[in-house]
Amino acid sequence: MKVLALDSSGLVASVAVLEDENLVAEYTIQYKKTHSQTLLPMLEEISRIIELDLTTVDAIAVAKGPGSFTGLRIGSATAKGLGMALNKPLVGVPTVDGLAYNLYGCQALICPLMDARRNQTYTGLYTFAREGDGYEMQIIKPQCAVALKEILEEINRLGREVIFLGDGVPVFRAQIEERLQVAYSFAPASCNRQRAAALGVLALSYIAGGRLEEAGQHQPEYLRPSQAERERNEAKKG
Amino acid sequence: MKVLALDSSGLVASVAVLEDENLVAEYTIQYKKTHSQTLLPMLEEISRIIELDLTTVDAIAVAKGPGSFTGLRIGSATAKGLGMALNKPLVGVPTVDGLAYNLYGCQALICPLMDARRNQTYTGLYTFAREGDGYEMQIIKPQCAVALKEILEEINRLGREVIFLGDGVPVFRAQIEERLQVAYSFAPASCNRQRAAALGVLALSYIAGGRLEEAGQHQPEYLRPSQAERERNEAKKG
Repeated sequence: MKVLALDSSGLVASVAVLEDENLVAEYTIQYKKTHSQTLLPMLEEISRIIELDLTTVDAIAVAKGPGSFTGLRIGSATAKGLGMALNKPLVGVPTVDGLAYNLYGCQALICPLMDARRNQTYTGLYTFAREGDGYEMQIIKPQCAVALKEILEEINRLGREVIFLGDGVPVFRAQIEERLQVAYSFAPASCNRQRAAALGVLALSYIAGGRLEEAGQHQPEYLRPSQAERERNEAKKG
Repeated sequence: MKVLALDSSGLVASVAVLEDENLVAEYTIQYKKTHSQTLLPMLEEISRIIELDLTTVDAIAVAKGPGSFTGLRIGSATAKGLGMALNKPLVGVPTVDGLAYNLYGCQALICPLMDARRNQTYTGLYTFAREGDGYEMQIIKPQCAVALKEILEEINRLGREVIFLGDGVPVFRAQIEERLQVAYSFAPASCNRQRAAALGVLALSYIAGGRLEEAGQHQPEYLRPSQAERERNEAKKG
């Protein structure tokens, strides 16, 4: 089973090709260019170096949200365009689940934090537990958009050690240090941002469970209205 | 602190650029091309996309071995060449330590297995433990070249759950399943091979501890004589 995985949900652009238990290629950048300048050229570069015939891909995995509105639309449009042109199904992976999967095997709480602006965060709570002959990621709190305060209070209530990661960490670090009452740490650079490879591994398990979409049907999940929609709604009320 | 990291010790070629807590770029492939065809073009591609001025790099990290003899020589020659031309220090990171660091935060035993041929493996035993305000990787058994049987017996003696990773896994899987008496599992595709990003994070900690080399002084650590050396020595004895 061969999967092409794309993540442009945050500051990072990441493209990976996985074939069963092998990561054939992964290319990730976190740089000030827009994803429309990077994502397709990165895919083209990977395809060239590993001599990838895109028609041999079985499915296209994409970070389905939440995240940057523009980033999600670029990822989604790219995945849908490829899926429709190549007649391949899509696999939408919740962005925060993909981030958490970076910490494969950790038995502490895993709390991805994405900066959602206005002191909100896209977050969730996860851990890994042995099940059968390996580790399964367990979703303790599914991805959501909440005030930072709210997720920190929930972690304090759970009373378990936690590892944070994501682009929200530098933004919220001072508040975490102030409010958190449990042991905590921050994931290192090798695993603290989106990686298409992690998304791809989750996508392989979704495919095994039949969770595929037709390319034309795919929709990003923003979890919140965009700034433009919010302002329009507020103007209507006012 | 900006680090360029290179790993061509095994089947994978991987290049990364890290700046403190950020992975700026990472490019990894596991494909049938030789590292001399891929490593420098990958570095060139990354440099282009993130507009990297190589003179701004503070140090060059390289997987110093063990591993494929040709792969290590290509990585080492590339790192030395760049280091000497740019007048930058090198940081040699033990290959097996770099592999283990892929499983950041895991409190199980971590056992990287690289296929060293002749039923031997380059391996070691690691785990992560909380120290101060984060996790530190602990080296339970430093990297070594041993018979597979030997490392499996050592794990059985320790009696602790273990996660395996590395290109030795598909080679040795049947023997592991036959001989191992503790709970075990295999890392997924997102973290089961060399990653220059993991190497780079370890290199940053080495730099903090002053473990730098002059580029001209760097030597790979093969851990074993090469096949040519072995055959010559056997011929001499015979």
